[in-house]
Amino acid sequence: MRLIFGVDIGGTTIKFGKFTEELKLLEKWSVETDLSDYGAHIVPQVAEVLSAHMKEQKIRKEEVLGIGMGIPGPVTSGGYVEKCVNLHWTGFNPVTELQKFFPGFVIRAENDANVASLGEYFQGAGRDASSMMMVTLGTGVGGGVILDGKILTGAHGIGGEIGHIATDPTQEETCNCGNKGCIDQCASATGIVRKAEKLLKSLDQASVLRELETLTAKEVCDGAREGDELSVRIIEECMYPLGVGLAHFSHAFDPEMYVIGGGVSLAGEVILDAVRKGYEAHLFLTGKGADIRLAELGNDAGVTGACALIAKE
Amino acid sequence: MRLIFGVDIGGTTIKFGKFTEELKLLEKWSVETDLSDYGAHIVPQVAEVLSAHMKEQKIRKEEVLGIGMGIPGPVTSGGYVEKCVNLHWTGFNPVTELQKFFPGFVIRAENDANVASLGEYFQGAGRDASSMMMVTLGTGVGGGVILDGKILTGAHGIGGEIGHIATDPTQEETCNCGNKGCIDQCASATGIVRKAEKLLKSLDQASVLRELETLTAKEVCDGAREGDELSVRIIEECMYPLGVGLAHFSHAFDPEMYVIGGGVSLAGEVILDAVRKGYEAHLFLTGKGADIRLAELGNDAGVTGACALIAKE
Repeated sequence: MRLIFGVDIGGTTIKFGKFTEELKLLEKWSVETDLSDYGAHIVPQVAEVLSAHMKEQKIRKEEVLGIGMGIPGPVTSGGYVEKCVNLHWTGFNPVTELQKFFPGFVIRAENDANVASLGEYFQGAGRDASSMMMVTLGTGVGGGVILDGKILTGAHGIGGEIGHIATDPTQEETCNCGNKGCIDQCASATGIVRKAEKLLKSLDQASVLRELETLTAKEVCDGAREGDELSVRIIEECMYPLGVGLAHFSHAFDPEMYVIGGGVSLAGEVILDAVRKGYEAHLFLTGKGADIRLAELGNDAGVTGACALIAKE
Repeated sequence: MRLIFGVDIGGTTIKFGKFTEELKLLEKWSVETDLSDYGAHIVPQVAEVLSAHMKEQKIRKEEVLGIGMGIPGPVTSGGYVEKCVNLHWTGFNPVTELQKFFPGFVIRAENDANVASLGEYFQGAGRDASSMMMVTLGTGVGGGVILDGKILTGAHGIGGEIGHIATDPTQEETCNCGNKGCIDQCASATGIVRKAEKLLKSLDQASVLRELETLTAKEVCDGAREGDELSVRIIEECMYPLGVGLAHFSHAFDPEMYVIGGGVSLAGEVILDAVRKGYEAHLFLTGKGADIRLAELGNDAGVTGACALIAKE
């Protein structure tokens, strides 16, 4: 049996997973990301953690099939990262850098949202699909498209950036990207809080949300799940435009399945119901649409997909 | 040198093309489609025309690499057609049917819009692109997506149906598909005429269009190309929503290029300018977008792509 290491590098923590060739998770752990010196220590840190683990567990080099990495920014061919704001990298290649510590190892890197999508595709909600889009609802909205087991990176680095499809004409604020009405502005945790504050102010409707000192997306999702009417309305208004965006994508690419993940998706079915409403209302000849499901791997999607870069190459 | 026959079956005419393995067009011709008896004679008609040509030109069976077909409706695996309204087919497989006349030949069929896209991809405007979407502006709006030389058929038969992305909130009428605001309602020849009639009625603005007895999309396109201000405005209002739809698609799939074809595209650059305006206004971090070009093969795209089904298999 040979092993694969999956590494999911984030701006706060670096997650590690040790897997079999069949993508069975054997062990996982994480460390805080060392962001000092413009992120110059991150790759050495990854190398040190993996070397220490191999030494401790008496894993020989020959037993390791490879190391896959997820990077929180656009990654082009060969693992090159033009700019990664969260890690302070500019014009840097984490693959060639990590290779210096592990000569002869197979090492791969891809964008973290794409890598998480790959994880869900092979081991999570998408394991029976041949084509899939994963949408990650967190602080922002990201996504990844997988076709026949391969990540679609896109020709100009905007593949999977479904958060910036503009389908919410009710947005008044301008998005970080410069446009208006982006899915990112409504279906993200930030968007849910913004919508909640707006509706709490403009409506008289009673709600459990009014009793809270600080309002977060989690409380709105909890409220919706427990049937609080205003919370349900907030979630519906936030998720409907996402459903519209998925319908748009289905008309061109027509994936077999959509998988909704990220922190906000933990709210469960209440999210899916609202997404499906927007999706079905905008679909050509309704009834032929894609399956829309919740993600299954949670925080393990990244390390799993990073390993899939090696195992499924 | 071996030959390939490309057959583009339409509701009015069947186009034939004889090509080399390198997709060089040697000869083309067409016949009127025999729609009698619920389309039962169409495949025998194709067989007869091809057999007569082979006999006349003394082409031996061994010289023919295969026959590719474009069908004006959804085609699923193996060439099966569940329903093709224009040809009156229901639950019919033109591939197995044609095979009876040409045993041992390689025969393939795909949807005609997809096949035309494949033609432009290999021999037309898309020949330098690795991923491409073609949009066909005719009576309606169709499309096809090509990735790495393969047609993306989609999981539920709606891949490439970009005409039914709803991006035009100004539409008051309901589209054939039951939705409102579809690209099909504005960027098609029908949509251009509808928009022209509406603006001619509601505005006082002088225009060459006012002098016409019957108004067609061609006159509006001609007017726009010649600088008639009202015609330019009509084309802009009709094509802007198409640009928005392409921007939506770019955020998920990010193709290298869009190719605009079909009768309406003969209007030329005036169409592209309006499409680009909508595209750029809705693109994430503008400047990274796809190349938007006019199709180059005209009516030959279908027969060329049908041959590519065989040549590039």
